[in-house]
Amino acid sequence: MIENDSNGVLGGIDHVAIAVHDADDAIHNLARTLGYTVCGDEIIDEIGVRLVYLSAGEGQGQRTMLQLLQPTRSGPVAEYLSDHGEGLHHVCFLTDDVERGLLRAGEPNVGGVFLGGRGRRCAFLSTQPHGLRVELTEELPWAR
Amino acid sequence: MIENDSNGVLGGIDHVAIAVHDADDAIHNLARTLGYTVCGDEIIDEIGVRLVYLSAGEGQGQRTMLQLLQPTRSGPVAEYLSDHGEGLHHVCFLTDDVERGLLRAGEPNVGGVFLGGRGRRCAFLSTQPHGLRVELTEELPWAR
Repeated sequence: MIENDSNGVLGGIDHVAIAVHDADDAIHNLARTLGYTVCGDEIIDEIGVRLVYLSAGEGQGQRTMLQLLQPTRSGPVAEYLSDHGEGLHHVCFLTDDVERGLLRAGEPNVGGVFLGGRGRRCAFLSTQPHGLRVELTEELPWAR
Repeated sequence: MIENDSNGVLGGIDHVAIAVHDADDAIHNLARTLGYTVCGDEIIDEIGVRLVYLSAGEGQGQRTMLQLLQPTRSGPVAEYLSDHGEGLHHVCFLTDDVERGLLRAGEPNVGGVFLGGRGRRCAFLSTQPHGLRVELTEELPWAR
């Protein structure tokens, strides 16, 4: 076990993403199975994905959500589905500043920041420690 | 989108599990990358796993945790690692009663309940909707 390093703390888990072929099917099946509700549904043309957020009924915004991640064109998510099928894709952690979060996580450079779901600045780590695809997101939408 | 069915609501996400070969390596790498701290570490001989819980520094117990899932002998987790390598394994949802949670999630029967991490009663769904391996856990340890 290692001591906690206060310079390296990211926040809680914002969402857990599931790659799916058809978000409408997944909304129907997963929301019914879990009793979760849709609290966001958007297409982001720039990165070619539809993002649907599912949350437990109570305490939305406080809790970790599920994100359904459907590709709207060819690209990394479509390739992932082709290679692996549907399933868990990544975990997204909160940070107050994506660039600082990337540095805290040991990234050698802080490129690759994009505008993701809910108007927030996001980035993925360039490595996958222990097979874990890690996204960082700011808590608040980007003020343009 | 479907209406929320109050009979089908499970609680928030208790933890997200990552299958790993060596939890000590993963503690070192992931805790350092994320700045998370170890808030639980136990071996459950009955199911042949070591479970390590990692949490953001603040608000432990309120937030969704990461669970490192290391097999201590041959079995399903060792097979998963052999087939898929390390990575995201399952998501565990809170329920006040595992059997009721299984019924709510549409399970035709309510078998397979076991005593999992932190002395809690747990069960996995028999299906994996959209590739998602779903565990349910009660919020409180089991009173024997």
